[in-house]
Amino acid sequence: MSEQDGARAQIGVTGLSVMGRNLARNLARHGYRVALHNRSVGRTRSLVAEHGDEGDFVPSESMREFVDSLSRPRAVIVMVKAGAATDEVIAELTGLLEPGDIVIDCGNTHFTDTIRREKDLAAKGLHFVGTGVSGGEEGALNGPSIMPGGSVEAYRTLGPIFETIAAQVDGTPCAVHVGPDGAGHFVKMVHNGIEYADMQLIAESYDLLRSGLGASPAQIAEIFREWNGGELESFLIEITANVLAHTDAATGKPFIDVVADRAEQKGTGRWTVQSALDLGIPITGIAEATFARSLSGHTDQRAAAQRVYHGRAADAEPTGVVQDPKQFVEDVRNALYASKIVAYAQGFDHIQAGSEEYGWDIDRGAMATIWRGGCIIRARFLDRIREAYAENDALESLLVAPYFADAVAAGADSWRRVITTAVRAGIPTPTFSSSLAYLDALRRPRLPAALIQGLRDDFGAHTYQRVDRPGSFHTLWAGDGSEVEA
Amino acid sequence: MSEQDGARAQIGVTGLSVMGRNLARNLARHGYRVALHNRSVGRTRSLVAEHGDEGDFVPSESMREFVDSLSRPRAVIVMVKAGAATDEVIAELTGLLEPGDIVIDCGNTHFTDTIRREKDLAAKGLHFVGTGVSGGEEGALNGPSIMPGGSVEAYRTLGPIFETIAAQVDGTPCAVHVGPDGAGHFVKMVHNGIEYADMQLIAESYDLLRSGLGASPAQIAEIFREWNGGELESFLIEITANVLAHTDAATGKPFIDVVADRAEQKGTGRWTVQSALDLGIPITGIAEATFARSLSGHTDQRAAAQRVYHGRAADAEPTGVVQDPKQFVEDVRNALYASKIVAYAQGFDHIQAGSEEYGWDIDRGAMATIWRGGCIIRARFLDRIREAYAENDALESLLVAPYFADAVAAGADSWRRVITTAVRAGIPTPTFSSSLAYLDALRRPRLPAALIQGLRDDFGAHTYQRVDRPGSFHTLWAGDGSEVEA
Repeated sequence: MSEQDGARAQIGVTGLSVMGRNLARNLARHGYRVALHNRSVGRTRSLVAEHGDEGDFVPSESMREFVDSLSRPRAVIVMVKAGAATDEVIAELTGLLEPGDIVIDCGNTHFTDTIRREKDLAAKGLHFVGTGVSGGEEGALNGPSIMPGGSVEAYRTLGPIFETIAAQVDGTPCAVHVGPDGAGHFVKMVHNGIEYADMQLIAESYDLLRSGLGASPAQIAEIFREWNGGELESFLIEITANVLAHTDAATGKPFIDVVADRAEQKGTGRWTVQSALDLGIPITGIAEATFARSLSGHTDQRAAAQRVYHGRAADAEPTGVVQDPKQFVEDVRNALYASKIVAYAQGFDHIQAGSEEYGWDIDRGAMATIWRGGCIIRARFLDRIREAYAENDALESLLVAPYFADAVAAGADSWRRVITTAVRAGIPTPTFSSSLAYLDALRRPRLPAALIQGLRDDFGAHTYQRVDRPGSFHTLWAGDGSEVEA
Repeated sequence: MSEQDGARAQIGVTGLSVMGRNLARNLARHGYRVALHNRSVGRTRSLVAEHGDEGDFVPSESMREFVDSLSRPRAVIVMVKAGAATDEVIAELTGLLEPGDIVIDCGNTHFTDTIRREKDLAAKGLHFVGTGVSGGEEGALNGPSIMPGGSVEAYRTLGPIFETIAAQVDGTPCAVHVGPDGAGHFVKMVHNGIEYADMQLIAESYDLLRSGLGASPAQIAEIFREWNGGELESFLIEITANVLAHTDAATGKPFIDVVADRAEQKGTGRWTVQSALDLGIPITGIAEATFARSLSGHTDQRAAAQRVYHGRAADAEPTGVVQDPKQFVEDVRNALYASKIVAYAQGFDHIQAGSEEYGWDIDRGAMATIWRGGCIIRARFLDRIREAYAENDALESLLVAPYFADAVAAGADSWRRVITTAVRAGIPTPTFSSSLAYLDALRRPRLPAALIQGLRDDFGAHTYQRVDRPGSFHTLWAGDGSEVEA
């Protein structure tokens, strides 16, 4: 294609599997001239052959040709498998790029890799922009939520492009500069962690309605459809209704009943919990959701437990536990909403802790804003979070924002009823239960953590603090029981 | 001291802070000639001055002198701070040691560091034995539980020494070769994770008796003392009674009421959960316990939540929730025991998964055996675990061993009553609740994980498996809803 300067591409995409391909098409549809590259040239050609009419593509057969086809500063989106493949492509690119050029990693990268790469490339005068992209294939094509990290200078070039191709909500693009180096990938990681919790809460709600209430998948689909008209309105609630309403063509059964009940994962839930452990942020909802997926895959253990407990006292049965079906549906809705508030409160705490630890200065309200559209957790709810941080950007927890505190207080009786019903009926609700325990612990004037400190001082001389004066103390447990200052 | 060969020391200890000092004394008391070294020589001198009469010590003023004072193969215990300090001492030692010598790291080291160091030292012809030691200062002196990794050859030298100085239960030493390289430190890490769960379960039990029943600390101490006479008999239950019975001399109040309710941690709980996430083992009890400690330290959030929720509907009050006090105490005891079984079942699953992942071939029954004495979680209960693995060393889960299944089945009604009471009363029982949810999920023929797979296939084309035939499938959700093989 053209080598004239005026005809050079404004942005390039290397790695044209479905996500890269759809991002390239999205860019072209918005009038950008897009350079294309893929290790095997077949994908580049098929993209141009099938979608060449959607915009202005500049295909290349080599990385050199690709780089040469870009106007300066060159902006290159790398959309290959996270890990070694990304490192290889970056190494090849950096040999060809010039100071001021921008490498954009839109893959599902761990933020610590992004921090490392940003440092490496900055030393070579290049910008490295680790960018979280959420919305799956469809979002990539029609408007994702975009979470770029990296330098302010790089964002000056990329911002207008990202904000154009992103989802738009009420005229506001779902793209914003998150913060330096790994901030974008960090926030995308937490987004995915919240998504785990969101889905597990939906799964527990479904289970309660199916096993507790005895409703059919079609009836539950209707319930979710109704919920989607209220404060729970969200993409995940919407597709839950679709999935539950779907009939398996092969068997004529509800689709949900022919799907194997082993939930898989690609690692971002795990990363989120591991990072929160490092930062000391109790994201119990995300942890329970991640572990619930692991548990579902342990088929040998599950089979053994079913065999051993079947028909025994521990084998509680859900039959007949619901007295008032209409109230129960409303209770589950309230429990879902309250638990969801907890999961988001924990996730936003995690963002704040990461921001402080790594010096990113992330604006939590802006994150809620760009998650309102494009991404998997998009929901009406995120507007309330945006508003909460707009009112008070130093909010200690979403749980204490007036709007959410009112919602939790209003739903608390339902929440407690649903969990007690589940516990009696033997329906596992790890995330509902854990979220309520979190609220109850947080609002409690006095926790039994004091006993844990006492025990630690007894067996390990780890010392404790007192409620009535500063300092660290140790009791001579094996001695005369007197207290010494440590 | 003597430089003659016959008078050389059989083992050395470098790093003479309290743990190293007590290990050295324990060795000397058992008739071993012990070489001593510490970076600052004062500690070496004071040990000899204060405890020289306990046995045969060979103090050194330099690392060279220390190494020269040992008979071959030299066995050197390193007892310094985990991390960089340990690396420094190892580097200094390896410059002085000869092939066949043994370096023993008894510090609180992450098992991945141990794997790395073992590899490095093996390349130099040295044995490196990462060794978990539990029991605190008192255990180090009078008999700890000892969990050595490393080579079989090194254990041939060390085994008789470790088995002599370890705690003894029914004539069996609490020391055994765990497995190659990092196996010992891995098992020690999981031990500590289980310890977190154990302590949190005790704390929740205390809270239920204090807030739910309205019992005083002294009364609860009595209850724990009674429990310690039964199947809950353990070191932690015993010291819980002591801590709760203790009166603060300064105020005359129960000690537990003057201790600040912020539980601290030194990192092994966090490591355990992070490792379990990597291995896909749902150790929900340990995770909730670890997060409960984190939560207790977030004082600003706690203060805000107390302020905002005080007196509102969400602010459940424990008053008057218990109808039958005697039954409630028995219910809490049963709930504690059942939850404890879950925590140990999860921990032993974690050991099994680590053993498979890293090729350690760990004998779980042997771990239960060496934890019966010396360590913090020592308990009568561990004999039952030992027996369960003796009966069936391929046990899918401790929860399906006949003895534990009977106990869980017998306690299940109590367990459900305690949690429903806690939920209604607003007493947070994250670990009780999470442990019951784990059992209920494990024994359930069908989990709502199927819905999660359906959602993942809808938004991300992640595919699903079917219950009725092999293969991976995808439904064309945005298309005609037909199913394709993936």
